[in-house]
Formats: sequence, C-alpha cells, structure tokens
Amino acid sequence: MRASRFFISTLKEAPSDAEIVSHQLMMRAGMIKRLGSGIYTYMPMGLKIIRKVEAIVREEMNQSGAIELLMPLIQPAELWQETGRWDKMGAELLRIKDRHGREFAFQPTAEEVITDVVRTEIKSYRQLPLNFYHIQTKFRDERRPRFGLMRGREFTMKDAYSFDRDVAGMQASYKIMYDAYVRIFNRFGLKFRAVAADNGAIGGSGSHEFHVIASTGEDALVYCPTSDYAANMEAAEALPVNASRPAATQPLVKTATPGATKCEKVAEQLGLSLAQTVKTLALTVEHEADGKLTKQYFTLLLRGDHELNEIKVAKVPGLASHRFSTEQEILDVYGCVPGYLGPINTKLPVTVVADRTVANMNDFVCGANEEGYHYTGANWGRDCAEPQIVADLRNVVEGDASPDGQGVLAIERGIEVGHVFQLGTAYSESMKATFLDENGKPAPLQMGCYGIGVTRILGAAIEQNFDDKGIIWPAALAPFELVLCPMGMDRSEAVKETTEKLYADAVAAGIDVILDDRGHRPGQMFADWELIGVPHRVVIGDRGLKEGNLEYQGRRDSEATAVPVADILAFVKGKLAQ
Amino acid sequence: MRASRFFISTLKEAPSDAEIVSHQLMMRAGMIKRLGSGIYTYMPMGLKIIRKVEAIVREEMNQSGAIELLMPLIQPAELWQETGRWDKMGAELLRIKDRHGREFAFQPTAEEVITDVVRTEIKSYRQLPLNFYHIQTKFRDERRPRFGLMRGREFTMKDAYSFDRDVAGMQASYKIMYDAYVRIFNRFGLKFRAVAADNGAIGGSGSHEFHVIASTGEDALVYCPTSDYAANMEAAEALPVNASRPAATQPLVKTATPGATKCEKVAEQLGLSLAQTVKTLALTVEHEADGKLTKQYFTLLLRGDHELNEIKVAKVPGLASHRFSTEQEILDVYGCVPGYLGPINTKLPVTVVADRTVANMNDFVCGANEEGYHYTGANWGRDCAEPQIVADLRNVVEGDASPDGQGVLAIERGIEVGHVFQLGTAYSESMKATFLDENGKPAPLQMGCYGIGVTRILGAAIEQNFDDKGIIWPAALAPFELVLCPMGMDRSEAVKETTEKLYADAVAAGIDVILDDRGHRPGQMFADWELIGVPHRVVIGDRGLKEGNLEYQGRRDSEATAVPVADILAFVKGKLAQ
Repeated sequence: MRASRFFISTLKEAPSDAEIVSHQLMMRAGMIKRLGSGIYTYMPMGLKIIRKVEAIVREEMNQSGAIELLMPLIQPAELWQETGRWDKMGAELLRIKDRHGREFAFQPTAEEVITDVVRTEIKSYRQLPLNFYHIQTKFRDERRPRFGLMRGREFTMKDAYSFDRDVAGMQASYKIMYDAYVRIFNRFGLKFRAVAADNGAIGGSGSHEFHVIASTGEDALVYCPTSDYAANMEAAEALPVNASRPAATQPLVKTATPGATKCEKVAEQLGLSLAQTVKTLALTVEHEADGKLTKQYFTLLLRGDHELNEIKVAKVPGLASHRFSTEQEILDVYGCVPGYLGPINTKLPVTVVADRTVANMNDFVCGANEEGYHYTGANWGRDCAEPQIVADLRNVVEGDASPDGQGVLAIERGIEVGHVFQLGTAYSESMKATFLDENGKPAPLQMGCYGIGVTRILGAAIEQNFDDKGIIWPAALAPFELVLCPMGMDRSEAVKETTEKLYADAVAAGIDVILDDRGHRPGQMFADWELIGVPHRVVIGDRGLKEGNLEYQGRRDSEATAVPVADILAFVKGKLAQ
Repeated sequence: MRASRFFISTLKEAPSDAEIVSHQLMMRAGMIKRLGSGIYTYMPMGLKIIRKVEAIVREEMNQSGAIELLMPLIQPAELWQETGRWDKMGAELLRIKDRHGREFAFQPTAEEVITDVVRTEIKSYRQLPLNFYHIQTKFRDERRPRFGLMRGREFTMKDAYSFDRDVAGMQASYKIMYDAYVRIFNRFGLKFRAVAADNGAIGGSGSHEFHVIASTGEDALVYCPTSDYAANMEAAEALPVNASRPAATQPLVKTATPGATKCEKVAEQLGLSLAQTVKTLALTVEHEADGKLTKQYFTLLLRGDHELNEIKVAKVPGLASHRFSTEQEILDVYGCVPGYLGPINTKLPVTVVADRTVANMNDFVCGANEEGYHYTGANWGRDCAEPQIVADLRNVVEGDASPDGQGVLAIERGIEVGHVFQLGTAYSESMKATFLDENGKPAPLQMGCYGIGVTRILGAAIEQNFDDKGIIWPAALAPFELVLCPMGMDRSEAVKETTEKLYADAVAAGIDVILDDRGHRPGQMFADWELIGVPHRVVIGDRGLKEGNLEYQGRRDSEATAVPVADILAFVKGKLAQ
C-alpha cells in the first residue's frame, strides 16, 4: 500500500472525552471516529486491524471444525420471549418496532436464533456434534458507554454455539473451543490468561474467561504461578488462612471502643492487628407463604482485612435472594446500632454464616452488640455457639494458598476479551430444541457458547502495548507490518530507486508494507508511524545509501540499526519471524 | 472441504411462500433460512457465495483506488434531519429509540454519515479526490418483503462515496467506478447490461443502473443492438414515430362509438388500426397563492398503442406535481364523461401536451367530448390549435428508432443489482461539507455514490442460471468450484485412494473443492449437487477405474466424459479457465 492511496489522519491531541489510553490513541491515530455515544466509524486504519483479528479468529474456528454462517441483526421478539430474555435483559436490549408495529431486538448475542435454526435442522444424533459461528455486529444499549471500543454500544463479536447429544460431548466441544481460543490469543501475540469464571446470568455449568493482561484492566485475575490454577475474582476459591482452629488462650473481655465502627479503627485503638478482628454484616431474607411475610436474619462474619464476595454470598444455601438489613431490623435483631455488631448475645435468633477463615480463628475481636464496645478474646463454642454455616464468602488476596494445594495465589489485572460457556440444556429446553437419540427418543440438545469481542481486542491490545509515543502493535495485529520512510524521494533518484525496489520486493514477499510517499518531513512521518504503532520501520536516505546502508528500527528499539541494502529484506523477514 | 465437516441441508419442496425461482432454489439448496418477514439467516452454503461476491467487489474497489472503512448501522437521527431525509424517507426507514429516548435510524444507506466523516476530515483540495466504501448490512422496512434475497428487509450492500473538487473531477471518479462495475460483473460471469437511468429521489445529475439480464426481471431495459445506447424504461428517450407530420387527407367526421371508452374498442368498431387512434388523459395541477387555490388543466395525448411514462410526465414544465383529474373536473372541463375525451372543443381552457408521436400524426381518431362519439380524420391546426407543448411522454417500444440514430431499439428484462449516481452537491450543501480550494475559499464537495446489492446478486444470478434440476452457478460465484463424488468410498480401497489423492491435489492446486464423504447413494448425491449448482463434478467409481478413468460432468453437460485418472486435474483446470 502507498500512503498516498490510503487514508491517514492523525491528531496531536485526543478529544477530552477519551478517558483511557487505548481510546485516546485510537482517536489520535485515526483508527476510529465517533458517530454517537458508544458508536464509531471504523476508519481505514482501524478496519484493517479489525480484519486481521477476524481473519485469525476465522481460521482457527474453521480449523477446529466450527462452521460459519451469518445470523440476522434484527431478530423477532417472539424468540426472545420463548427463553424469557425479552423481559430479563432490561434496557440493554435495543428494542425496535417495524412499520407494522411488530417487535424486534437488535441482537446483543444469538442463542435464541441459533437454537431456532438448529431445532428445525437437527433431527438425529447422527448429525451431532455441530458447532456454528458467525462474526457479526452486536448492539448493547449500555447506560454509560465509554472507553472507545472497550465499552461501546455497537461492536463486533464472534459468537459460536455447539450442539451435542450428551454432557460428555458438550464438554469435548467446550475443550476444542478452549484450545482454539488459546491458539487465537497466542497468534494475536498478546499476553493473556484463561481463568475459571462464574456462569452468571447466562446459566449452565462451567465457563472460562479469556483476559488480555493489562495493568489498566478492570478485572482482577487470580492465578497460581506454580500451578495451572486461574480464576477470576468472582470465582476464585478462598481457603481458610489457618488450616485448623487454634485453642482459646484469652478470656472474653468487653472493651470500650468509642467511635470505632470500622475494624481498622478498632484494631488501631486496641493496638491489635487487623487480622485479629472480625467484621459483622447483617442480612435479611424475606419469605412469603400463604400471603404471610416472614423474615430470616443472617449474621455474616469476615476477617477484618478481607473483602466480601457478593457472588459467593448468593451461593450460600438460603441466601440466593438476600438484602442488607435495614437499620430498624438491626436494632431489633442485635439491640444495637450498626458498627458494634457481633455474633455474641443477639436479641433475636440469627443464622451465623462464618467465612472459612473466621471459623478457624481463636481469640478474635468482634462487636459486643452494645454501642461503643467490642469484645476481645472471643472464641467459638465457648463464648457463642459454633457458626451454623461455614462458607467461602471472601475475595482471595495475594499470598492465599492456591485451592489446588500447589502454591500461593497472585493477582493481576486483565481485560475480558473472550468467554466460553457450558450452557447445558438451558436454551434447548425452553425452546424445545430436541433430537432423536439412538433409541429414537427425543432429548434436548446439550449446548455451549463461545464469544470473542473482536473490536474490543483492539482496545485491550493497546492497553497492554503502548508507550509515550503511541501504540506498539504485535505484528499479527498491526495495520501494516512494515513502513518504508524515504527521505526526499522527490529529490534523490537513489532514494527513489532503492525505495521502489524494496517496496516491490516486500510486496512480493507477502509483507504487509506501507510506503510513506506523502512527502512529509521526517519528524512528522516518524511521529505518525510511532503513534499508529507499525512494528518495523526502514528509513531510506542518501546519507546511509552512500555507505550502502538503510536504517532499520523496531518500534520498541531505542536506536536504529544500519543494515546493508542487499540484506534488508532478509533482516526484516527475520524480525517478522521472531 | 469435506462434506462431513460442512453443513448441507437440502429440501425436496420449497416452502409455499417462495414465489420465484431463485427464492425457491435457495431455500431448497439450504442457502438461506427464514427468520422473519424479509429477514434471513445466511446458512453456510449461502454465506460462502456471499463471501465470493464480496471478495470480487472488494478487490475491484481497492484496485480502482477506493478505500474501505466501516460505518455504523445505528445512526443518529440528527444527521438524517440535516439533509431532510428523516422526514422524506417515510416508513421504509427503520427508526429506533435508545434507552434515553434518543432517535436513530438503522442505515438503509450512508450518504449522511460519510458526509459527516468527510466534512471534518477534508480540509483542502490537496486531499482530493477521495473515494470511501464499505460492505455493510442495510435495512429497508419494505411494506411487502418477498422474493427471498431479491426484496428482503435486511440485506448486504456495498456502497461507495466519491469526493471531488469540481464537476469534471466528479465525472472522472464516476467513470472510474463505472469501469470498476463493468469489471466486477464480468468477473461474476453474469450477463449484464449498464443502462442510463433517471436520478430519481436521490438527486444529482446523472446515473446508470447495472442489471443482470433475466427473463423474470422486473425492469425493462432498452438498448440498441447496433450501438452503445442503453437506458432503463424510465429514462429511454422515445422519438416520434414519424419524423414529420403528413398533410391532412380526411375531413373531420364525428362517428358514433357506443360503449367504446378504450382506444382498442374504438379501433375495432371503426375497423381502423390502433396506431391511428389517440388517447386522452386529463390532469389537474393545483396552485396556491395568497391563500387562494387555483386549478390548471392539462390534456395529455398519447397514441392509442403507446404507454404513458409517469417519470417523463413529471418532467414536463408545469407538471412536476400533477394528479389525474377527478370525474367532476372532467365534466367541468370537457363537458363529457371519461372515455370520449379529446383535444377538440373543450368547455374550459386546457393546456394540450402532445406526445412527440401524436404531434406528428394526421387524420387521427380522438374522443369528441360527447358521450358515445369519436372524431375520425382529426388534424392539428385545422380542427384544433397546435398542441401548446410537445414532449416525450411515452415508453419506448421494440422497433422504435434509437435516440442516437444508430438503429432500432430492442427491449429485454433485467434485475437491478448496481447503481452509480452523480450526486453533485446535493448532500454537501445541506450538510455544509466544504473544502478550501486553490484560492483558499470554501467550496462544497462534489459527490458521487455507487451501490451494489451484494446479497441480491445471488438471487439475480440464479434467475439467470437455472434448470429443472436446480441452480447453475458461474464458477466465480459457486459455493464450490468442483465436487468429488466417490461411489462406495467405504467399500473400495481403489475408490478411496483415488478420491483422497485427487482431493489433496485439487486443494493443493487452489481449487475450491468439496469431497462428498457423506456416504449417500449416487442418486441423492447427484441430486444435491445439481440442486446446489456446483459447476464441475467428478465421479470416482470402480467401474471407471478398471479402465483407468474418472467421469467428469459439467453442470450444463447432458452427459459425462470419461477422463483418464492421470489427466483429470489438468482437465478440470482447463474447464475452470474457460
């Protein structure tokens, strides 16, 4: 490509609404252009990168036996009503009425449509397994779109859907997709991590997220550097800090802690470690039976320095639909204002749910259910009953033991760019998508679904790879692999001739090369390509040519390397092969 | 591709709502699947063809210097309001409200968005010319979607937009696109014709339509077999049948024609040729000035065997917004009921607009403005005043003189699949898209726009190429170029070995080949591939192999040809190169 035949438009300053680096750099490099809130035109420089992402995804999907089709953007409401998602999805689902008043959704995902396709196409177990995918525009009407392509409204996603005859088949299909994702992210040249995830609202029995590692990522990833264990924060299992409970050594003492409603303050006033304190959370669960409302109260206990994990709380039996207790309920149950609550001597019966670590603590500090007082030296069994429920309630922290017993946990930040799910029969049952098994009996299809945020990859790749000059693309995603920068092509016949020959040779060698023939000054030319992030650059100038050399510089290199003209193509090829 | 790794689903019967052949065959061949009215999933077999269309379009667009980007589907109403199209487009424009109640359109085309992109990106004449295109989903909320991909609601279009500094530049860009379209349709391997067209509602100064020739096409194409003249019926110029008017030879005679309100009936009753009769149409144009409504009446005259062309009528000065006169108006103006009207002796003054052919007639037959009577022997100047306006009002017919004077016109049917327009400044002026010219003065951009109906090409190609067995794809568009049909691959080692070797060789030769390894019986296998329309087939069977032969059959061949195993690849390559 010659720059004069392409469209290059760079900016010195990013618009003020671009809050994060990838958004700023994509705007400055002329890769995207805002049309509306969370809606962008992919300019030629950006589209070229998107096409590279799509090509790698497509190749690996095809390689793994998935079959490409293309499902429509505008989908009848009736299908979404069959699964109940028409109501469940809320305002994020963009709803549309056609000229006849019929209702449709702009697809945010395509479980309903693919299940509709498959329930009429698949009759027998002999047709299974099957995996269909498409790379298609999606729309999610985010309440607060931001961060450019990272949290836009209109975006591109690859979504695949597998269909199997039984759970073992579904798990095999899932494994094939998981492995394909590993190949895809490796080919992108990005540092990534696959982590076990909670299935959440989509339902089903198992899932993994694929994250691009970046210090600016909004998700915390938990992993064990000495084993394969990896999960996101929601799903990472926290073991008790002490494997077993030491015996009591202190008496229970009520101590004045005036104004100390937080564990940090209590520990400070008492001169104790935060790890000796226990914090109490009061929850209420309402039950309705025969038109009568009854309330059940729960005391949740966490070590003072630990953080509550809401997802885990919701999984505790009886707590699926809980809420925090009101101040009045707290007064009724504990006889005390918030800030001094504890498990000892409550006024009304409560179910005590202790985090695993708390259950194994001795001589701990907790609220005395009396304003301005805490207990020290509290011990289970002696000062109050053993907790009725012991459960994993907290987020893991760095240094926790890995649940697989193979080391200790570390935490890093990531950006979610892929997600694979075992759906089971969640959709096939509600939509009656069945097949005839070996005995001629109808059975629901076992499904999996597999997404990659195609346009989001661009933002994530930049968050991982940039410096103060601009973007640093891995070669596989770069809009161009190589840029040729001639110095004064219009003045020097030698520069022109060498440049044109190198350009022709690079094209013939299959290198995605751009020749900057715009006639800009070196400073502007270099600044543009460093901002755009082309990984390899060759400068052709009279000074070097006098000694038979060209100047090669990698985007991460601090200095240029002189390379003889005759060797340059092989040199660049070598760099590209690294 | 192995058939066992692809998704093939054929039907014996088309669904009853498939009215035309291409819709029926695409449904039967499993290329599309209906999701809703005018909305289809592109199944793997159909998507593969769409990708081939897109690849050819993309290559030729890039080759001609156009630059690809991708504009969003969901576009803010504000832009459409700037050009007035938000109101003008009517119910075909799918309108959407987001969660905040802001209005958007699902793009049916992208003039507004590209003009918005360009007005901020283009500052100077030095950046021109530019041509941007995208291949993107479109939605038009057709009142009555039908004919499968031919008149769907959600479809794929390539739309390009050129920007130039002056009219000459715009015309040069237009010519480049016109030439690219000719190359594209030639590469498709379809019989097509480019015809001059009326610009219609999109505005501007010149346009051509590209039609795939098919006897089932809904458009009539006019062309001159002995010259380059070609236009669609709306735009084709009709010359007078007689170059000049012969002198009067008959007296004006009022003749009883009871019940003969149509020219055909009059000619029959009088024993005259239909070409001697003139039919009269009564039009009204309303003017409003100073709150007062006045009406102007027009008498349109056409030869009895000619058809009115509404587009041409609207171009007659004063007739831009006309309507047919009401029965009461006709009584007032002509003093007579419809069916017996004519230009002689009207009660109120009317403007007589004669078609060019009528203006050159002598001794003609027309209504006498008296129920049950016609005049014969009517002559201009003698029996009534010369027509105030002489204009081209009619559709041409086969045998009319070509407007370029190079022969006579022929007519054939076509399906519109491409359209190129010279837009001029219609959009750039309303959206204030200007650039600074050589003198530093702002000037509006001169625009062109260029569309190809990507998904519609599939329907049109089939309407042109099918037989009673199914589709006959030209090789460039076929889902696969070659199908290998082994007879009993699981029973015969020789068949298996030969098939696998030929398959590997074909893949290595870059042929898009599918190996039917489904194990179906020959009859079903052949019927499937004839329905799907793969242009080249090789059958591998023990019978032929005994003599060292395979059986080649082209999709249009009535019989197979025995080809030695060693020659088959070269033989198929030869066929593909034809």
